[in-house]
Amino acid sequence: MTSSIPKIEQPRLGEPYLLTPGPLTTSYSVKQAMLRDWGSWDDDFRAMTREVRSGLLALLGEGGADFDCVPMQGSGSFSVEAMLASFIPRNGKALVLANGAYGQRSAQTLQYLGREHIVLDKGDYLPPRGDEVARILAEDPDITHVVAIHCETSSGILNPVEEISEVTYAAGRKLLIDSMSAFGAIELKPTEIRYEAMVSSANKCIEGVPGFGFIVARKSELEAAKGNSHSLSLDVHAQWAHMNKTGQWRFTPPTHVVAAFIEALRAHAAEGGVAGRGARYTRNRDVMVAGMRELGFETLLDNRWLSPIIVTFFCPDDEKFVFDQFYKLMKEKGFIIYPGKLTVVDSFRVGCIGQMDEHVMRKVVSAAKESLEEMGVTSAAPPLRALQERAKLAA
Amino acid sequence: MTSSIPKIEQPRLGEPYLLTPGPLTTSYSVKQAMLRDWGSWDDDFRAMTREVRSGLLALLGEGGADFDCVPMQGSGSFSVEAMLASFIPRNGKALVLANGAYGQRSAQTLQYLGREHIVLDKGDYLPPRGDEVARILAEDPDITHVVAIHCETSSGILNPVEEISEVTYAAGRKLLIDSMSAFGAIELKPTEIRYEAMVSSANKCIEGVPGFGFIVARKSELEAAKGNSHSLSLDVHAQWAHMNKTGQWRFTPPTHVVAAFIEALRAHAAEGGVAGRGARYTRNRDVMVAGMRELGFETLLDNRWLSPIIVTFFCPDDEKFVFDQFYKLMKEKGFIIYPGKLTVVDSFRVGCIGQMDEHVMRKVVSAAKESLEEMGVTSAAPPLRALQERAKLAA
Ligand SMILES: Cc1ncc(COP(=O)(O)O)c(C=O)c1O
Ligand SMILES: Cc1ncc(COP(=O)(O)O)c(C=O)c1O
Repeated sequence: MTSSIPKIEQPRLGEPYLLTPGPLTTSYSVKQAMLRDWGSWDDDFRAMTREVRSGLLALLGEGGADFDCVPMQGSGSFSVEAMLASFIPRNGKALVLANGAYGQRSAQTLQYLGREHIVLDKGDYLPPRGDEVARILAEDPDITHVVAIHCETSSGILNPVEEISEVTYAAGRKLLIDSMSAFGAIELKPTEIRYEAMVSSANKCIEGVPGFGFIVARKSELEAAKGNSHSLSLDVHAQWAHMNKTGQWRFTPPTHVVAAFIEALRAHAAEGGVAGRGARYTRNRDVMVAGMRELGFETLLDNRWLSPIIVTFFCPDDEKFVFDQFYKLMKEKGFIIYPGKLTVVDSFRVGCIGQMDEHVMRKVVSAAKESLEEMGVTSAAPPLRALQERAKLAA
Repeated sequence: MTSSIPKIEQPRLGEPYLLTPGPLTTSYSVKQAMLRDWGSWDDDFRAMTREVRSGLLALLGEGGADFDCVPMQGSGSFSVEAMLASFIPRNGKALVLANGAYGQRSAQTLQYLGREHIVLDKGDYLPPRGDEVARILAEDPDITHVVAIHCETSSGILNPVEEISEVTYAAGRKLLIDSMSAFGAIELKPTEIRYEAMVSSANKCIEGVPGFGFIVARKSELEAAKGNSHSLSLDVHAQWAHMNKTGQWRFTPPTHVVAAFIEALRAHAAEGGVAGRGARYTRNRDVMVAGMRELGFETLLDNRWLSPIIVTFFCPDDEKFVFDQFYKLMKEKGFIIYPGKLTVVDSFRVGCIGQMDEHVMRKVVSAAKESLEEMGVTSAAPPLRALQERAKLAA
């Protein structure tokens, strides 16, 4: 299994591993690609922009011919806002499927935009299901677009975008996907799942460094998006039209971040593309989750909903467990973990993405074991309340 | 004179110098600072964010105590849009002083925002003067804000922001400045010139790599900006409030670009801050312009209006002079120059900013001389039309 995985590089200089969902641990060669300067107007850099766009489109497989890729400066949220503003017309209405912070953020963005929308709010982690989406669409013919989060990174749940897509198009509506933390490790082939546009960013599953996002959208939608955006900077149509005409970004691109991304895209291809990358992350997750469960930790989600991106664990029900101390102890051992985002019970998260393999994940588990011991925590079992919370998922 | 200038590093690997107004040639140590990864949530990175903010505020001198600095993801235009949207209230009205592409871009941004505005359009390069601004403000009491471009990079003119500030506040209005290409090399001290907010970006006179901009604004304006912005991503108030509360950026920061910027800020301080940096650029310009004039080239602007940032030259009136070929020949010799942006006559631009000193500028002039010879151009003198155009400036 592991023999086919390319060599994973260790961070240098005692640098900790980032078990976080981006920025994440990147390879040294990705960072080395930033050791020169480029003129953004020059042909050399235009060729780099072309490589980014075509490399990303290639990840869609055959159905990609109908799509185009538009890189956008800023963090991932900037690209989400650009997508929502550019593809939902001003007289459109969106149904946002929210089960965590990023679904909520899309709704908040629509609020800023003054675009009509309703939210199906499933709380901290319960998945929005096809049948309930179908029901809402049937009841509200004004809804033109459904907005879904692919992997809701705040809990780590992999939302059922296939069934959401099916009911959306069955009802004659359009789907936009925030695939920020999933794209590049989980297939999103237009031949298998229908959608109009999706976004992700440089510093997630492609393993680049942060500094830009990208929108992948159907060409017909890109054409139709003219005049929709509320923002000059975040106008996907304008960025796309300018790029196609001149080969340049409209405004100064993050040249070094783009160079790093090209190196990352090449490594992604060498690893076997989406399938290869997804396999390594899945193995990372399986090894890490098995080890943590052995220590007595419990995951928020049962296996069916666990993404290979990031996993939420309940904090142990032991007064000696203090998250800030656990974080510090893990960091001393070379691992930066992530606080939880659940509102009802205490939790923390461990990412599976970045330049890490199962050997690293075993060390993460050992570090967690030692950290518990150092804190004097004898059981990692969560409080009853947490298990009751989780039971909702089965209901 | 040159003895006090710190060592300027040469680009490696036959990399060309970027004689462009950002992205520009940065030092190797600035790029080397990007050779590791940071967790954006971690204390180490929060300390870096603090250093960026306080380092930039320090450039304002004493008057800086009333101001705060808000870094913003994206290119410089994103920060301009964020500034305009956040500080001009929805019922405000702006007067945009335009004499080139960047003034026009601010007007276009306000158009997107649906904010009322008028434009004083001075064409390709004529400076907006205090008396005409005063007249417009007197005639239109609805104007609440004046938007000025410090160095209008499209011609290289250094606009008279001091006299603009004086008449703006004399008329009880507020000033916002796009100092993108000037800040860090030309003083903008609130004790000497009054304004509410200004923007610049990482890859200009501080000599970092591109990936974020920053807004420096009066704290009272930052307080008052709540609810003004049209955009979640480009909300300066929200970014500021979140940063002050948590020490973090609201959305994923370009961690590596920030690390490079800290290195750049330290080098800026070591060079003597704004005064030292400005002195080197001024010397770069003086040496380069003198050499080019000796070759027969003429500048668009006379000395009074020349910025130490970038200089526009007329293309020679010789049919053997073809800009694309000149560009290619200059690039072969290690120098990337910039096309012009004048609408009425052909021109090109040469930047004076980045890791370059007068010795480099002498080589630029030699390269221009050789390139003319290789093209068989015998005179670099511009067409009469260009000189007639320039005469408008004296009128
Ligand atoms: C699903 C999802 N959407 C949006 C975002 C926001 O991206 P950024 O922090 O780059 O703005 C993230 C970040 O992790 C995410 O996971
Ligand atoms: C005066 C001025 N304003 C705005 C900008 C836009 O900055 P960016 O290209 O980073 O969006 C520039 C870029 O050179 C500039 O010089």
